[in-house]
Amino acid sequence: MIRKKISAAPSVRRLPSYLNIIRELQTGGNEYVSGTVIAQELKLDPIQVRKDLALTGITGKPKKGYRLPALITAIERYLGWDTPRNAVLVGAGNLGSALMGYAAFNCHGLTIQAAFDINPHLAGTEIHGIRVFPAGSMEAQIRESGTKIAILTVSPASAQAAADALVHAGIDGIWNFTTVKLKVPEDVVVQQEDLSSGLAMLSVMLRAKTRETGKPPA
Amino acid sequence: MIRKKISAAPSVRRLPSYLNIIRELQTGGNEYVSGTVIAQELKLDPIQVRKDLALTGITGKPKKGYRLPALITAIERYLGWDTPRNAVLVGAGNLGSALMGYAAFNCHGLTIQAAFDINPHLAGTEIHGIRVFPAGSMEAQIRESGTKIAILTVSPASAQAAADALVHAGIDGIWNFTTVKLKVPEDVVVQQEDLSSGLAMLSVMLRAKTRETGKPPA
Repeated sequence: MIRKKISAAPSVRRLPSYLNIIRELQTGGNEYVSGTVIAQELKLDPIQVRKDLALTGITGKPKKGYRLPALITAIERYLGWDTPRNAVLVGAGNLGSALMGYAAFNCHGLTIQAAFDINPHLAGTEIHGIRVFPAGSMEAQIRESGTKIAILTVSPASAQAAADALVHAGIDGIWNFTTVKLKVPEDVVVQQEDLSSGLAMLSVMLRAKTRETGKPPA
Repeated sequence: MIRKKISAAPSVRRLPSYLNIIRELQTGGNEYVSGTVIAQELKLDPIQVRKDLALTGITGKPKKGYRLPALITAIERYLGWDTPRNAVLVGAGNLGSALMGYAAFNCHGLTIQAAFDINPHLAGTEIHGIRVFPAGSMEAQIRESGTKIAILTVSPASAQAAADALVHAGIDGIWNFTTVKLKVPEDVVVQQEDLSSGLAMLSVMLRAKTRETGKPPA
C-alpha cells in the first residue's frame, strides 16, 4: 500500500472542509479569505490552516489573504477533483446504495459508472440511476472500461475475494468501506474508511464533556 | 464545541481499527498481541501504536505484549463502548437509511431508538426495524426519552434548523454527516463526518502513485 507515503494525510483530509467554507464565502459575495477566518470557522489553528493550504502551492496576499476563485482552483487541482474520474461500486447493499445516491461525489469529479452485486435479484436494476450488474461480469467490464477506482461496500466475508478480483481486473485504487484490512499488491492504493472512527471521537468527546461538567452519562 | 480539547484525536480515531485486528487475532486463538504486530498489520509505526494504546491505561508485558481480552476491554472502556447508549437519527434518506442498517453500531453500544424525517410518507414506516416518526414530534420525543446523541443525515439546507431543534430538546452530542458547519452552544459536542475527506486521501494517493510509476492518470 502507498498510504504510508502520504505524510500530509491529516492536512489532505482537512482540505475538503476548507472547500466547503470557501464556497460558502464565495456564494456570500466575498472576494478574499484569510487563513485566520477559515481557522475560526473550523476551530483550527491559523498556522495549521496556512500550512495545509501551502500544500496546494497557493500563497496568500499580506492582509488580504487568498483570492477565492484561485484558492478553490488550487485545492481542487491538488486533490485532482478538477479531472473527471470513473469508479465502480462493488456491493450494492445499504451503504453501497447510499453512496450511489451521494451527489457530492459528482462535484468532486467522481462518477460511479456501474455497480456490481452477488445478489441475482439486484442485477439489471438501477439504483439512483446507476445500473447494477452481476458480480460475475465485474472483471471483464472493468477491464473493458479501463476503470481504475473501486468503491468496496461488500460484507466483510466477501471483501478480500472482491479486492483480489478488482486487482486482477486492473484497479489501481480501492476505497474500502469494509472493516477488513485488505491484502493487496504494493502498487495498489487502499483508502480505509471506518465509520467507527467518528463514533470513537464522538464517544470520547462526550465522556470528556461529562467529566468537565460532572454530569453523569445519559 | 469541545472538539478542540481532544488533543489525541488521531489516536482515538485509530483505536477502532486496532479493535478489529485484535478481535481477528482472538478469533484465531491468540492469547497475546504485541504493538509491533498491530503496527505491521496496519502499516503504522510501532511506537505510535504503543502510544495510542497507552491512552487506554493498559500496559503490555515485555516480550509478550498485551493480553487480548484485557486489551479489548481497555479499548472498549476508553471509548465508552462498553456502556449502552441510545441515539436518534434525523433524516431517514439514503445515507440515514444506510446508517440505520449499519449493524456495527450495535457492537459499539449504540442503539438507534428512533428516526425522524420531514417526509410525511416516511412517518410510520420502519427502516431496518427502526421506526420513523414525523419531524414535528422530534423535540417532545427526545425530551421524553432523555436521549443525548443524535445522528444528523438531513440535507444541507435543513441541517442548522435540525441542529437547533436537537439542542433545544437537550441533545449533548451530534454526529454530523452533513457538510454544514453547525453553530451550536459551547457545551454541545459535534463530530463532523465528511466522506469527502476519504476521497481526498484516495485522490492524492493515486496521484502520488501515478507520479511514481510515470503512468498517466486513467
